[in-house]
Amino acid sequence: MTSKAPCPQGESLQVFKGTFIHATHTSPMETLTPLILGVNRTGKIVFIENVDKEEELSQAWHFQKKNIRVLREREEFFIPGLVDTHIHASQYPNMGTCLDLPLLEWLVRYTFPVESKFKDPKFTEDVYTKLVKRTLRNGTTTACYFATIHTDSTLKLCSIIDNLGQRAFVGKVCMDLNDLFPEYKEKLCESVVETKRFVAELTGREYPLVKPIVTPRFVPSCSSELMQQLGSYASSEGLHIQSHISESRAEVELVKSLFPECKNYTDVYDRHSLLNDKTIMAHGVYLSNDELKVFQKKGAAISHCPNSNISLGSGLFDVRNALHHQVKIGLGTDVSGGYSPSVLNAMRAAIDVTKILGFQSSNYERLTYQEIFRLATLGGSQALGLDNVTGNFEVGKDFDAILVNTNVPNSPFDVFTDDTQEDIFQKFLNLGDDRNMVEVYVAGKKVVPFPNA
Amino acid sequence: MTSKAPCPQGESLQVFKGTFIHATHTSPMETLTPLILGVNRTGKIVFIENVDKEEELSQAWHFQKKNIRVLREREEFFIPGLVDTHIHASQYPNMGTCLDLPLLEWLVRYTFPVESKFKDPKFTEDVYTKLVKRTLRNGTTTACYFATIHTDSTLKLCSIIDNLGQRAFVGKVCMDLNDLFPEYKEKLCESVVETKRFVAELTGREYPLVKPIVTPRFVPSCSSELMQQLGSYASSEGLHIQSHISESRAEVELVKSLFPECKNYTDVYDRHSLLNDKTIMAHGVYLSNDELKVFQKKGAAISHCPNSNISLGSGLFDVRNALHHQVKIGLGTDVSGGYSPSVLNAMRAAIDVTKILGFQSSNYERLTYQEIFRLATLGGSQALGLDNVTGNFEVGKDFDAILVNTNVPNSPFDVFTDDTQEDIFQKFLNLGDDRNMVEVYVAGKKVVPFPNA
Repeated sequence: MTSKAPCPQGESLQVFKGTFIHATHTSPMETLTPLILGVNRTGKIVFIENVDKEEELSQAWHFQKKNIRVLREREEFFIPGLVDTHIHASQYPNMGTCLDLPLLEWLVRYTFPVESKFKDPKFTEDVYTKLVKRTLRNGTTTACYFATIHTDSTLKLCSIIDNLGQRAFVGKVCMDLNDLFPEYKEKLCESVVETKRFVAELTGREYPLVKPIVTPRFVPSCSSELMQQLGSYASSEGLHIQSHISESRAEVELVKSLFPECKNYTDVYDRHSLLNDKTIMAHGVYLSNDELKVFQKKGAAISHCPNSNISLGSGLFDVRNALHHQVKIGLGTDVSGGYSPSVLNAMRAAIDVTKILGFQSSNYERLTYQEIFRLATLGGSQALGLDNVTGNFEVGKDFDAILVNTNVPNSPFDVFTDDTQEDIFQKFLNLGDDRNMVEVYVAGKKVVPFPNA
Repeated sequence: MTSKAPCPQGESLQVFKGTFIHATHTSPMETLTPLILGVNRTGKIVFIENVDKEEELSQAWHFQKKNIRVLREREEFFIPGLVDTHIHASQYPNMGTCLDLPLLEWLVRYTFPVESKFKDPKFTEDVYTKLVKRTLRNGTTTACYFATIHTDSTLKLCSIIDNLGQRAFVGKVCMDLNDLFPEYKEKLCESVVETKRFVAELTGREYPLVKPIVTPRFVPSCSSELMQQLGSYASSEGLHIQSHISESRAEVELVKSLFPECKNYTDVYDRHSLLNDKTIMAHGVYLSNDELKVFQKKGAAISHCPNSNISLGSGLFDVRNALHHQVKIGLGTDVSGGYSPSVLNAMRAAIDVTKILGFQSSNYERLTYQEIFRLATLGGSQALGLDNVTGNFEVGKDFDAILVNTNVPNSPFDVFTDDTQEDIFQKFLNLGDDRNMVEVYVAGKKVVPFPNA
């Protein structure tokens, strides 16, 4: 706990006093109480100190005691904003439905049809507004989005995200192969030109928190030329990259047949310059240890999407093994292969997966719920290369946070007098929902409740 | 669709018009729309007809058009009340916590300690009131409860259930062996005498919907003498019986060592006269096909508790195989081995289990979500021997129902104009919660919202 050199901030400083629960590099979960935390006008955390420093801090930072927001004991606490490292904004209309087919059939039957609707600006605005509000309300302060192949519609998503104040990477989807649903694909050159236009227009808008990410859909949807051009472009511009890898067995077999000259699925991306320390790949269920070693060497990250992996019948990703290989891991909702927009749900599903692997393999070292909490916060920020900006409560980082209240009217669970702070946190983790997320902050700005709600 | 002989009911008749979704013996899910349904003053469904019969019905049953409750199209519909066939009321304080140990260690470390607190009447009243309200709010119209070894505390639970209007079986727990936590057990004769007192007092109170169930905890907690006496007593009085069976591998091994003369776990209960057509056993994860055949022959039922089976790392129960053996199956939340009080959550976890079994075994015939909806409603009522009274919408049955509204303020999911009725139902199943359960009825009486809330 340190503090930056004070400067007169007056009333623009926000000061909170109470319990903060977060993860650090050395501890999967740490409960800090009672603390006092200050956020400056640019949204950065400027001090985190024990409450006995209150007097000293109030003089150094020029704030008055009456302006401190004091959290109620036990029932109120802050956690870092949740990081959703993989979500298809454009699949939101299908969320909670269409889960009866495996991946490749599911794409053709349900997913390409809904994505192709986003050429319509009215549909775009309606769906994306509802989706971004939904994720914010569920505490997602940072999201890594897939949109569709439509550039202007994807730019509209960026403007909605900026307007509502979320931190995000947004990708215009690139795909020049789609024999099974030919209405939904681009020509090779169009895909590249439109990606560049998307990046240029988004960059020109200077949204402070919304950044572009180069997004080849996945190997079966992209020609080798397209992947090569996107890889070169991303490298030359220093852009982030997202795609899918090794989600289902049938897909892995398909990729093997498409690129017989490559060692494995990972090698396909690697040969097309798409695997580096700015890459995040969703799923990775069937990655071999050799492939995980390549991920580690390249600094590429994996988005673990447990709800989706179960709901589409894809498989169970072994997070422990990937962590042993020192691969960066975040959690993803993968809407709408996953049926929930909530990273809380992703945490619960990740706990289920590690428990199932635990009773199906002897001596399996299950992840604790604390480790999964870290994946959902600090882990996600690392996977997206944002851990110098967000992911936990450290001086110098942006204040991305959720104020949890476990005693709201109509709360989905009961707290008893004997419950410890840890019990209450676990009840929130297992049983809480957006009703308990009474305020959400991104870069110091309160984005939930919505300003005009 | 038929109707009972009409009689003048005047204003005491409740009439609803709109969409009803339920299961029958021949169809796992049926959407009936638009229908008109009447409930008489004793809470029984007296007619279910197509709306074109409205005029005729209003004359025969003497109700006026203005008194018909008309549901809004698409967004409002009725489903049958949910049936929770296995829930430990007394473990409610621990719900959502204490899930880091396997069954036998979990009992000693977390569960016996909390259950032993129910000798305190104040604690009893506080916890049981909160629990019953919580389950009702989540649409549980029928529950099969384990309480504790304390008779008066268990009677208090019955009075709370009666007062709040839920349908229930309630069991005073019987256990005369507990070496690892000796503070929480009874003497043999006390267990039997107190069970008889519990049954006599509860019966004497003439609660219309709350019935006793004989409840030996499970084989490792009960001496052979205790099981024998409880079995004889239940048989002689025609009482229902509940217990646990084959939940975890370690437990199965323990039972084998305790009763080496028995063929298997099922045989232990069978030899003690505890397995008949009024028996419901929780879990059954490791039951062999031979044991399932005994269940079928005896007419005994299984409560499938998927959240608990995953959360405690017990295993995955193969519902399809049990259904192939024609065993009656309901769903259970198994609070607090399961972390959720909601049968909706049990449905989601059951879908997860069948999908995981599906991708782990080739040619596995997964259950559809419709089949799981049937388990949660009609299946549960069959498992508890109540399918002549509740479980779906049929003339002559009690009106146990949930009015679902998918367009409430602050609904946890969004509905789009293109969504079909089936899409909307699936969104509710996967993403809905108590906010969408705007009214809950048991035997025709509106029990949610709570009368004085």
